[in-house]
Amino acid sequence: MTAAFPLPQLAETPRDAREKCGVVAVWGEPHPARAVYFGLFALQHRGQESAGIAVTDGVRIERHTGMGLVPQVFDSNTLARLDAAAHAREARHRGRPGGAIGHNRYSTTGASRPENAQPFLASIRGGPLAIAHNGNIVNARELRTSLEDKGHAFYTSSDTEVILHLVASLSRGRQNDPLAEALRMLRGAFSLVFLSHDRVEVARDPWGWRPLSIGITAAGNPVAASETVALDVLGARHLRDVEPGEIVTFRDGPAGGPPLIETRRFADPAPRLAQCVFEHVYFAHPASRIFGQTVQAVREKLGEQLAREAPAAADAVLPMPDSGRSAATGFARASGLPYREGIIPNRYVGRTFIQPSGDERATAARLKLNIVTDLVRGQRIVIVDDSVVRGTTTRGRMEQLRAAGAREIHLRIACPPIRHPCFFGVDFPDSAQLLAHGRDLEQIRQTLKVDSISYLSLDGLLAIAAGAGAAVEEREKFCSACYSGEYRIPIPAQLSKDVLAKC
Amino acid sequence: MTAAFPLPQLAETPRDAREKCGVVAVWGEPHPARAVYFGLFALQHRGQESAGIAVTDGVRIERHTGMGLVPQVFDSNTLARLDAAAHAREARHRGRPGGAIGHNRYSTTGASRPENAQPFLASIRGGPLAIAHNGNIVNARELRTSLEDKGHAFYTSSDTEVILHLVASLSRGRQNDPLAEALRMLRGAFSLVFLSHDRVEVARDPWGWRPLSIGITAAGNPVAASETVALDVLGARHLRDVEPGEIVTFRDGPAGGPPLIETRRFADPAPRLAQCVFEHVYFAHPASRIFGQTVQAVREKLGEQLAREAPAAADAVLPMPDSGRSAATGFARASGLPYREGIIPNRYVGRTFIQPSGDERATAARLKLNIVTDLVRGQRIVIVDDSVVRGTTTRGRMEQLRAAGAREIHLRIACPPIRHPCFFGVDFPDSAQLLAHGRDLEQIRQTLKVDSISYLSLDGLLAIAAGAGAAVEEREKFCSACYSGEYRIPIPAQLSKDVLAKC
Amino acid sequence: MTAAFPLPQLAETPRDAREKCGVVAVWGEPHPARAVYFGLFALQHRGQESAGIAVTDGVRIERHTGMGLVPQVFDSNTLARLDAAAHAREARHRGRPGGAIGHNRYSTTGASRPENAQPFLASIRGGPLAIAHNGNIVNARELRTSLEDKGHAFYTSSDTEVILHLVASLSRGRQNDPLAEALRMLRGAFSLVFLSHDRVEVARDPWGWRPLSIGITAAGNPVAASETVALDVLGARHLRDVEPGEIVTFRDGPAGGPPLIETRRFADPAPRLAQCVFEHVYFAHPASRIFGQTVQAVREKLGEQLAREAPAAADAVLPMPDSGRSAATGFARASGLPYREGIIPNRYVGRTFIQPSGDERATAARLKLNIVTDLVRGQRIVIVDDSVVRGTTTRGRMEQLRAAGAREIHLRIACPPIRHPCFFGVDFPDSAQLLAHGRDLEQIRQTLKVDSISYLSLDGLLAIAAGAGAAVEEREKFCSACYSGEYRIPIPAQLSKDVLAKC
Amino acid sequence: MTAAFPLPQLAETPRDAREKCGVVAVWGEPHPARAVYFGLFALQHRGQESAGIAVTDGVRIERHTGMGLVPQVFDSNTLARLDAAAHAREARHRGRPGGAIGHNRYSTTGASRPENAQPFLASIRGGPLAIAHNGNIVNARELRTSLEDKGHAFYTSSDTEVILHLVASLSRGRQNDPLAEALRMLRGAFSLVFLSHDRVEVARDPWGWRPLSIGITAAGNPVAASETVALDVLGARHLRDVEPGEIVTFRDGPAGGPPLIETRRFADPAPRLAQCVFEHVYFAHPASRIFGQTVQAVREKLGEQLAREAPAAADAVLPMPDSGRSAATGFARASGLPYREGIIPNRYVGRTFIQPSGDERATAARLKLNIVTDLVRGQRIVIVDDSVVRGTTTRGRMEQLRAAGAREIHLRIACPPIRHPCFFGVDFPDSAQLLAHGRDLEQIRQTLKVDSISYLSLDGLLAIAAGAGAAVEEREKFCSACYSGEYRIPIPAQLSKDVLAKC
Repeated sequence: MTAAFPLPQLAETPRDAREKCGVVAVWGEPHPARAVYFGLFALQHRGQESAGIAVTDGVRIERHTGMGLVPQVFDSNTLARLDAAAHAREARHRGRPGGAIGHNRYSTTGASRPENAQPFLASIRGGPLAIAHNGNIVNARELRTSLEDKGHAFYTSSDTEVILHLVASLSRGRQNDPLAEALRMLRGAFSLVFLSHDRVEVARDPWGWRPLSIGITAAGNPVAASETVALDVLGARHLRDVEPGEIVTFRDGPAGGPPLIETRRFADPAPRLAQCVFEHVYFAHPASRIFGQTVQAVREKLGEQLAREAPAAADAVLPMPDSGRSAATGFARASGLPYREGIIPNRYVGRTFIQPSGDERATAARLKLNIVTDLVRGQRIVIVDDSVVRGTTTRGRMEQLRAAGAREIHLRIACPPIRHPCFFGVDFPDSAQLLAHGRDLEQIRQTLKVDSISYLSLDGLLAIAAGAGAAVEEREKFCSACYSGEYRIPIPAQLSKDVLAKC
Repeated sequence: MTAAFPLPQLAETPRDAREKCGVVAVWGEPHPARAVYFGLFALQHRGQESAGIAVTDGVRIERHTGMGLVPQVFDSNTLARLDAAAHAREARHRGRPGGAIGHNRYSTTGASRPENAQPFLASIRGGPLAIAHNGNIVNARELRTSLEDKGHAFYTSSDTEVILHLVASLSRGRQNDPLAEALRMLRGAFSLVFLSHDRVEVARDPWGWRPLSIGITAAGNPVAASETVALDVLGARHLRDVEPGEIVTFRDGPAGGPPLIETRRFADPAPRLAQCVFEHVYFAHPASRIFGQTVQAVREKLGEQLAREAPAAADAVLPMPDSGRSAATGFARASGLPYREGIIPNRYVGRTFIQPSGDERATAARLKLNIVTDLVRGQRIVIVDDSVVRGTTTRGRMEQLRAAGAREIHLRIACPPIRHPCFFGVDFPDSAQLLAHGRDLEQIRQTLKVDSISYLSLDGLLAIAAGAGAAVEEREKFCSACYSGEYRIPIPAQLSKDVLAKC
Repeated sequence: MTAAFPLPQLAETPRDAREKCGVVAVWGEPHPARAVYFGLFALQHRGQESAGIAVTDGVRIERHTGMGLVPQVFDSNTLARLDAAAHAREARHRGRPGGAIGHNRYSTTGASRPENAQPFLASIRGGPLAIAHNGNIVNARELRTSLEDKGHAFYTSSDTEVILHLVASLSRGRQNDPLAEALRMLRGAFSLVFLSHDRVEVARDPWGWRPLSIGITAAGNPVAASETVALDVLGARHLRDVEPGEIVTFRDGPAGGPPLIETRRFADPAPRLAQCVFEHVYFAHPASRIFGQTVQAVREKLGEQLAREAPAAADAVLPMPDSGRSAATGFARASGLPYREGIIPNRYVGRTFIQPSGDERATAARLKLNIVTDLVRGQRIVIVDDSVVRGTTTRGRMEQLRAAGAREIHLRIACPPIRHPCFFGVDFPDSAQLLAHGRDLEQIRQTLKVDSISYLSLDGLLAIAAGAGAAVEEREKFCSACYSGEYRIPIPAQLSKDVLAKC
Repeated sequence: MTAAFPLPQLAETPRDAREKCGVVAVWGEPHPARAVYFGLFALQHRGQESAGIAVTDGVRIERHTGMGLVPQVFDSNTLARLDAAAHAREARHRGRPGGAIGHNRYSTTGASRPENAQPFLASIRGGPLAIAHNGNIVNARELRTSLEDKGHAFYTSSDTEVILHLVASLSRGRQNDPLAEALRMLRGAFSLVFLSHDRVEVARDPWGWRPLSIGITAAGNPVAASETVALDVLGARHLRDVEPGEIVTFRDGPAGGPPLIETRRFADPAPRLAQCVFEHVYFAHPASRIFGQTVQAVREKLGEQLAREAPAAADAVLPMPDSGRSAATGFARASGLPYREGIIPNRYVGRTFIQPSGDERATAARLKLNIVTDLVRGQRIVIVDDSVVRGTTTRGRMEQLRAAGAREIHLRIACPPIRHPCFFGVDFPDSAQLLAHGRDLEQIRQTLKVDSISYLSLDGLLAIAAGAGAAVEEREKFCSACYSGEYRIPIPAQLSKDVLAKC
């Protein structure tokens, strides 16, 4: 007779997935689930794999999550069911309809797992608690092992579950602030929203990696969201960003008054902040205001700077659709060349599309983009894009332009070459798959088969991200590790090995 | 500034759902997921809300669950993906393909919750652990509160999650047998199957409430299932039932040999067993052998005994389809009356059916059952059914028979009147909704508008369930609380209040 | 330069599909689509491939058809949309809500074609016309070729479309009765329902092959349906059957009065009728009254007659589920042997079921049926079934019974051996696939591996189908060509070659 | 006794639907269904309601149609099944894989009718015939009535079915060319593709209303499509457009050789052509070459001309996404103002989106478009769009820009005001719903609440559509009736009444 469940040689561990995500939270809204739905819709670009919303009825928390886009996951019935929870609270506490949080999730891991859809919801000592997370915790593995040793059971491979268990675990005794205590144990990037029966709490890591903004609706209710574009959609005024190391609480105010917005610190801001510069380059919505500047304006300026750093003798500037349009208008303006839309994306190309195979490969490319031959044939053209990651798509498009008769192609990229992995929430492929990994500029040019190629300088990028007239120190507030390889905090050997192992 | 998450007035607690379910486990099968699939299919009558299967690859455990019937939840691709885990193990440990467990779940709670689908799977200190459960734990609420106080986070309202956390929690230290220790803390009905990276463990509560049988396939591999009908489908020989208070382990045997079947006790059998007599009356499959007797033969004998206890002067015996057929053949045989199929159920009536409304109500009944008018008009008929719960369906059918011209209707029920709730895994409605609750026989007769009604006596039922020639003490091995109100273990006030509160 | 569209060598022609189907028609009902829906539901056993309903609004006809079972094809919204047409008519003509027809279709042809779903709806000279058909027209091919030569375009391969075009074609001139004229040109089996803007017309072929009954609802509205079980469901009284060669019309009566039921003949009844005896044996619903007798009572009597013709020394009679139950009760009654349900069909087996492959074949059989071993092991059993077509299922079940320990198996079939194809609406497989085709009784016994086998005699069958005390000539009113090979009308060479060609 | 089916007062008639559609045809391709699929995908902008493909196997024609976008209607299995027909032909006629045609359909009629999905397929005297149509036949109603009088039955309300029946009807006798004869009877707009067992035939109406081009693939196989962008996707070289009044045939060439392309006339070109100028303004794909010019280049020039005709004192030019981008770049270039993308469309807005209601209306607008506030606040902006139809969307966007702080808004539209319905294939709303119907320029300005508004002149539009340096007569080759009300052929009273009746 033997003891049950001896240790296997390899324990199941978090898969260190690096996810891009969006979060939203509201308090005091009459239809909080609908409000969060519209906010998530505005943040759909941050994650398309799954979506979820949690709403409190003052005692319990109702939750709905699903795979797919926000409008696929939620229909009117589901939203009405969730908002019924808020109405139940309102009936109990006159005039206080309660709150909700929501999450969009993006993951490139092959197996889409419904159980990873957030918000997570659990019953802990203090009552029900829901959580949604944008970022990546680099010490999740060691925290989880330690909790398992204490008798905890984990249902997912997500680092977000580790945060939830930490809070539950610290709610055991009589601590003053289990949430702050838990957040102090985390190392990495996190913009978090929590919902309990009587409040919303939102928090941002001490390095400020991911954006997180607070606003206030016309009715005076507080809102938090990953980006200001979600505040805009809700008609909310942008108050300020959550500060690195800060927890902000939304809860009922005195009878008849608006909700309260309270603040406390769980940690001092890091001496060197690590705002992700790639949010400005690619990830954030053009209409959002991130780290103090409007994204679209930044991108136009990157194009202008690129034109100054790397001009080209050409007949026209063509944007790579849709990613290069902002920088291309800046490039055209600064260079004086005409801006022409010569590459037309097929707006019906989606995931269900039948892939052409074998001899139909050229057809595949032509289905995704149509070249306006008259604008390209016999011309010297500048193609502007915001960034290049793998380069496979870019190469195909360059071939397509050449086949359409372009005389010269000058490729201009509005950021430096990406050469290093990100451990803080952007899901780049393994280094070996990055176009610029191990290739110099001439090798890249040959790979893409263009007549000339230039990237924007890192100095140029940081100067513009910091803002016109900013002191040089301001440039230090950005993490640009994907370009430079300089990480703000040490990466555990296991994490970097995971990546290396795949190379 | 306030502490996070103060206690709400009512904590979210388990909803004390009483579920009927089926479980299956195999070890050593070449395609363990397919084997469990076929076993679950044979147990579909025990639960139609959700189904799930978990398979180990020797290190991790793969799992798939979904809402609906077994063939709706699983397709060939899903089974192949699960069995790939077993094949991975086989490749590692030559000739040892590993094991799987599965679960069918039935719930009448309004909101079907995908997260309640079993098997549950967690990563705990000892590695991955999957669990599936048939039964109901009556002290789940207090166990859960105690675990929450220790810092545990619960994701569902299921008592099965409490069992899982108990095992995780006791795996913290150096206990000899955390599984046995956990099971000893449970009070209530449980037939359980567990899967870890290197074994299956199956266990049955000390009272023996729910059935759980072990068999061995033609290839020599061990199988466990809620009912023998699942063993039959797999071509497995029925070895014996798991004993009350016993844990049976399936794991790899010595190289080249068949798997081992090991046994240990976590508790002595209860002094008075509590085998559920309603399994024989209604719930178990007719072809199963339960608590030592074949169900179909028992049901025929219940009909014979009923004919002896309550004969009727009539022209023919008609079974209530499909539930009364077994008892009706026994009744016809013992009474000498002809057996005639005069009530034909529509086999296409399903859940998507459009409900007739208002003046179409009679149409609704006629859609579900067609009366063969020639066999009923002007006749004195005996209608035999196995049991009556709410009585609403029965009343409608009696009206339908009368409308078809029946001269006399004599209703005969092959078990006593059901008057009390079950806390051990059968989901009866609240007492107030039971036909026989607070009604004497004459009142029941008037409610159903029949010419006479008789139920089988409790003595008659128990004598036949115990088996021909069994000592009187054998009758004491059955729980018949739904008829008598005598519960084998005390019911916590909260549980019985829950029911009363609903009345 | 060449002429367009020269003749291909093989023209696309009707595929001579032999379909079992059900039809329903109502006039004057307040919700005619819902009424037809319930009627079709009651006739679901006549066809499961597609369903459809057409309703008139007094000018146009609205139609909905779809693949699958009736409740899959129609939801409340669809029925409400269809009934809105009737309400529009009611608003126009006070108190006259109009009518509807419907159809269930069964086809074993591999390619399910949505465009073959009936009712068909067309706009012709006289206005819109909808049609639904049960039967098979043996001269459809030559009628269609003739119409194509006149410039007609056909969209389907269905013989029903030919009927529709015939009516349209004859509506050209000033004929007194284009419908009667069209029907006179058809040879074969047809029970038809038509809907135009102001009436329903129903017709039955001069041979009376397929059933078609008329009833009247409690509100005084006329109903027609393939079987009386549909009248029962609608609470309608069975008036009489449509006579061979008759057209019955339902249309508005004088203001304030009930609808009119009018009759006319398009042909005299055939000198020798050809009522399909297989409707009684297998196809019709047990609760229906067909060709003057109740189906269930006929089937019981077939079992009694079988016991007289072919008794067996045995311990019990077991029905083959679900088809043999009626005959088995008759057999048990006449033989004095006990009737026992020892073969339990799995009611969850459906089309989505994953087929066991290779070594799992025995599992497949056991999944579909469970044997109650105690009732079979060591016993001499009589198995009664209504008919045997291919015999493959029967053989598997006999093996299963033997494996469960049956000592002797005596198979009794309540009709004669089926040896010939049907060209009049029953979709038997090609002759070569019929068990009894080219095999004598002993060969059949060996094929099925039973200890004895007997079929009911053709005389016995026809005597009971004709009814107790019927004159011998009454037996001549039935078509029994599938047993005898004697077809009432000559089969075109092409049709019989089609079958032979496949052999 | 009465005659069947007397005439109702209103016969069901074609609904005069005006549809925008796309057609494709190929001959000789190894996978003709896949080729047509890719072609339809490139023409998706011409119709999103349904799609369909028909393929011949040399004798029969296989067809698949469905509701939705091309990739929703077809999956790999469906395409493989269709292409199997072509492979069957290839096996029969070595090296001649046959052909296929396809259709995209757009309809704004409320009830989407699956039976209206094209290609239509029928069996006629000459064998199977499939047809697909882009355009609108204005004398369809009278042709259909005449055919019904001859005994024809119509299944749809589509004018395309009338064309099919005409061809069938004329194939009766020994005409030399039933197709040409049928086309000569049609008045209106039609670009047609036909498939029979041995050829494709494509035809264009004598007025040349809709585009239709012919190309040749790298392998030498002929292709026809509504727009050249579909030829591009298939890697086909654009040979020329089908001429007004021409039929072009694709069929097998001599053994071993490429397919033949043959031509004949069914009519002379109309003295005044009627090429739809709105194809250039809005409808055609920017990368297509239509009526002799590249669409994108035409649109840029319309913007340039607009800047010359109606300059504005402003800070920046913003395109209305996505429709105004081409004209806006032209406007910016000619005016010297900076081009800035300040209005960002949400690319996830689709049809399943939950509509905000009541007080959420402003949210709805903000969900569809996000304003980059920094580029708009305090600025004088020119907004350029290609056209305005109803104006409701435009008005909402102007409000949104004003709310974002725009100081002055100058709206510039790159075509004249639309004031008249189209009867030739563009589905404009009823006149009364057109913004410019009954409003002068100042009224339009006030309705849209902008500081200034200007439309391009009709002369300016036609001069550019005709091409640089074209003779003034060339401008007469375009139909511009939606601007001018001058229709090339008389509109039947019924058709124009239909529209007026709705006003």
